[in-house]
Amino acid sequence: MKIIADAFGGDNAPLEILKGCAMAAEEYGVGIILTGDEETIRRVAAENGVSLEKMEIVHASQVMDMNAPPTAILKGYRDSSLAVGLRLLSEGRGDAFVSAGSTGAFVVGASHIVKRIKGIKRAALAPVIPTVEGRYMLIDCGANAECRPEMLVQFGAMGAAYMNKILDVENPRVALINNGAEEHKGTPLQQEAYRLLTESPLHFVGNIEARQLPQGGCDVAVCDGFTGNIVLKLTEGLSKALIGQIKGILMKNTATKLAALTLKGGLAEFKKKMDYKEYGGAALLGISKPTIKAHGSSDAKAFKNAVGQAVRFARQNVIGSIEGYLAEMKAKE
Amino acid sequence: MKIIADAFGGDNAPLEILKGCAMAAEEYGVGIILTGDEETIRRVAAENGVSLEKMEIVHASQVMDMNAPPTAILKGYRDSSLAVGLRLLSEGRGDAFVSAGSTGAFVVGASHIVKRIKGIKRAALAPVIPTVEGRYMLIDCGANAECRPEMLVQFGAMGAAYMNKILDVENPRVALINNGAEEHKGTPLQQEAYRLLTESPLHFVGNIEARQLPQGGCDVAVCDGFTGNIVLKLTEGLSKALIGQIKGILMKNTATKLAALTLKGGLAEFKKKMDYKEYGGAALLGISKPTIKAHGSSDAKAFKNAVGQAVRFARQNVIGSIEGYLAEMKAKE
Repeated sequence: MKIIADAFGGDNAPLEILKGCAMAAEEYGVGIILTGDEETIRRVAAENGVSLEKMEIVHASQVMDMNAPPTAILKGYRDSSLAVGLRLLSEGRGDAFVSAGSTGAFVVGASHIVKRIKGIKRAALAPVIPTVEGRYMLIDCGANAECRPEMLVQFGAMGAAYMNKILDVENPRVALINNGAEEHKGTPLQQEAYRLLTESPLHFVGNIEARQLPQGGCDVAVCDGFTGNIVLKLTEGLSKALIGQIKGILMKNTATKLAALTLKGGLAEFKKKMDYKEYGGAALLGISKPTIKAHGSSDAKAFKNAVGQAVRFARQNVIGSIEGYLAEMKAKE
Repeated sequence: MKIIADAFGGDNAPLEILKGCAMAAEEYGVGIILTGDEETIRRVAAENGVSLEKMEIVHASQVMDMNAPPTAILKGYRDSSLAVGLRLLSEGRGDAFVSAGSTGAFVVGASHIVKRIKGIKRAALAPVIPTVEGRYMLIDCGANAECRPEMLVQFGAMGAAYMNKILDVENPRVALINNGAEEHKGTPLQQEAYRLLTESPLHFVGNIEARQLPQGGCDVAVCDGFTGNIVLKLTEGLSKALIGQIKGILMKNTATKLAALTLKGGLAEFKKKMDYKEYGGAALLGISKPTIKAHGSSDAKAFKNAVGQAVRFARQNVIGSIEGYLAEMKAKE
């Protein structure tokens, strides 16, 4: 198996990406194809003692500009490390693609260069978010600010396929993020999506309120990309703010620092449990080949986890499972 | 000054409401008009040693059913403690109204019985939410799932008036909750609201991402009621989940319990800082007289704070300030 990795995506590229890829090649025993400026890759690797063994480099002369419009990947940035990686994937040179680069360009590039699964209306970004009792997949977390009800149903199917194949969840519980539990709640988008989800072959467990999300209660939480962006960003921002406050309390003086030592084990466990990086990046679901968007701030370990996720994504045939749901839904129409 | 209080709204009515009103009468030196079943109020007060001095009771034979549609307040529940309280307010029998009852019925009842401020398209629910560096008003947090861009601008004006008059914020910073910082971000609703806010007399500071909200950065965060519901409920749910996890770490064994003792002061301070109950209830802004929606789970102290908020709301002439903004915006058209 070969994973294609964008060596120039994200805040810590290329060094952390190279380190992460070296760790992944070792840990998962897979080949890696790096895309990006070959000379820089070789120089940075040499300067930092990162072995490029088991890795190929495919040269790309450009880096996608984070401030360029996403569609620029199809025009002025056709030779960016992101575009070249996606092209290699579409040509079958590797089994999956990972990038920590621009989210918008990633979605546009994957949809147009690699193409969507036949019948899928929109690709959706889907991170796995830790909860008190486990984790849930949030889909869509931001690829599509505006959605139609039938897209939300497809998001549910894609999320269920992923959670079943990658995280071994039997019969994943799919819920609709809404402003109340009753079926008439929400805007016409949620009301119609509720109806369609009820009629679908998915294991639909009804609406879920945002209050319930951090406790658990579903395996796949479906929403439009605007709402998903709010949920993801607020989860990240509030966790960070609250943990920062707790740290302040622990570091206040000598006595509290001593107390903190006693709590060290418990706090470390808690931190690990709540660390979304443990689940790798966000899968871009709906594309005809496995694509993973790593967090823009990925360090080596986070990128390594994202490569590991790409390996499982390719091995477990998630895409075949999504196609199965699509066929089932079509048959019901 | 007289505050009208719905004695039968919320999970802990009537006892906690009566206690809260007694505390408020004492602390703020105001008169209270209680609405609800007179016999029950007198009996519960007597049984629990709550003094009804300085309080009047206006009998109401019904309690608004939480499961009834909100519009039922105008039909089958016209003699509910909620409807009667709103009618007393519209007749000028008191200066402000507080209820911990059904949110939907409260919004519908206030809009139709007390009426909106002339020119205001929709009333909005607006709680004040604590942040690391202070607090912000979230408007609308759920009264209107669907909004038009001009409504969001009015929400900004109402929030600015409140923050200025009640929390003494000079020139409140108004921000638009969006999925990115750039002005073209969001759906057409946010894009057009951004344009209108830029042209308005408000101190508009641009888009705010959900990630930033818990840190601070604005005094008024404007959004449609669906998004606001997600922000409010996720903030409550995630705070609760994380604090629960921290408690678990502290209570794990004898050593951690001892450590917890050392941290007691810091944790109590943190809890107080993050407690939204400190700010009272959610103001229902846009109604022609002061109306406060207390949290459904209000205990005596939370309800007392909500009454205190109603007192300030009436004293500070927030409504006059909202009318001033409306006139300024009309002049600019």
